[in-house]
Amino acid sequence: MAEQLEPISRMQQQLAKLPGIGSKTALRLAYHIASQPENQVRELAAALWQGRKAISYCSICGNFTVSDPCPICSNPERHNGILCVVKDPRDVAAMERMHEYHGGYHVLNGIISPMDGIGPDDIRIRELLDRIEKEQIKEVILATNPDIEGEATANYIAHLLKPMGVLVTRIAHGLPVGGDLEYTDEVTLARAISGRREM
Amino acid sequence: MAEQLEPISRMQQQLAKLPGIGSKTALRLAYHIASQPENQVRELAAALWQGRKAISYCSICGNFTVSDPCPICSNPERHNGILCVVKDPRDVAAMERMHEYHGGYHVLNGIISPMDGIGPDDIRIRELLDRIEKEQIKEVILATNPDIEGEATANYIAHLLKPMGVLVTRIAHGLPVGGDLEYTDEVTLARAISGRREM
Repeated sequence: MAEQLEPISRMQQQLAKLPGIGSKTALRLAYHIASQPENQVRELAAALWQGRKAISYCSICGNFTVSDPCPICSNPERHNGILCVVKDPRDVAAMERMHEYHGGYHVLNGIISPMDGIGPDDIRIRELLDRIEKEQIKEVILATNPDIEGEATANYIAHLLKPMGVLVTRIAHGLPVGGDLEYTDEVTLARAISGRREM
Repeated sequence: MAEQLEPISRMQQQLAKLPGIGSKTALRLAYHIASQPENQVRELAAALWQGRKAISYCSICGNFTVSDPCPICSNPERHNGILCVVKDPRDVAAMERMHEYHGGYHVLNGIISPMDGIGPDDIRIRELLDRIEKEQIKEVILATNPDIEGEATANYIAHLLKPMGVLVTRIAHGLPVGGDLEYTDEVTLARAISGRREM
């Protein structure tokens, strides 16, 4: 006989497509799921499939939403002429957890990455330019990650926006709060020094 | 607005029930799944739910199977009077990958663990005793894990079986092949010495 049941192999194969789940972890999860009560597995499968069906992208900002436009874009109080540009919906959730930002968002749903064949036309930059005119945006905060792709994407967008007369800002880089100077990498430390402010 | 969409939270909640998947990993997976094409998520959900529905326990050995009795129990060549007792279906898969064992199995589907409130009556020991008489078993190989619960369970079963006149054996403990004596823990090393064989 085959060492592994076909339904187990199929679960393993599908689970191994998830990010950070290798083939061995997927097999462990498949065996676990096979041993769970049917109704629990039904709930898991339903949460994934029905959840995916319920979620779409906001036609304005590109964030995940269950209603279009999303609650943030539908809220007139958040149309204050400021847009925060982020890579993906997780970043919007992180910003919202902060409870300090009250403007709008623009989710790129991707990042410029020539290595992965992703260029400016593959992410929502065109839509950003349209919104700046239509929504009379005065400031665009570029909040892409401080990594190579995030910096390149921020630079590319800044280059496009400046001639439009809009204020373009970049989130600050420096030591995380609670961070330790001794264990901070040189590049972050250099950014923290060059970005120093008068107290 | 709430920082997180209800469908995302529900995915997160369900995924976090899986072993080794914490709340943060579950959230990361939920966002990933929300961003995947609908048909891919349908395939994942279907693999889990249909997979679970297809799998049941063999009424004889207790292993996972899609047909009852399972292919091993249905194979007359494997009725050779030897039963290998393991904790769960994953252990059967490990044994079968070895391609060296040609007897039958008995899957306990659990292990005696007073800490977790699991006693002898909660695992398939009663069924094992029945099979020994019915199938004229001559040897029972106790292949539970070499940890506290596995040892205790093996000792408990050995104690029950010996008066029945059946040969009871325990898998050998020692250095794993390719292992390094220097880095072997003392308990394993002691087992390797006490289990030494003439060459």
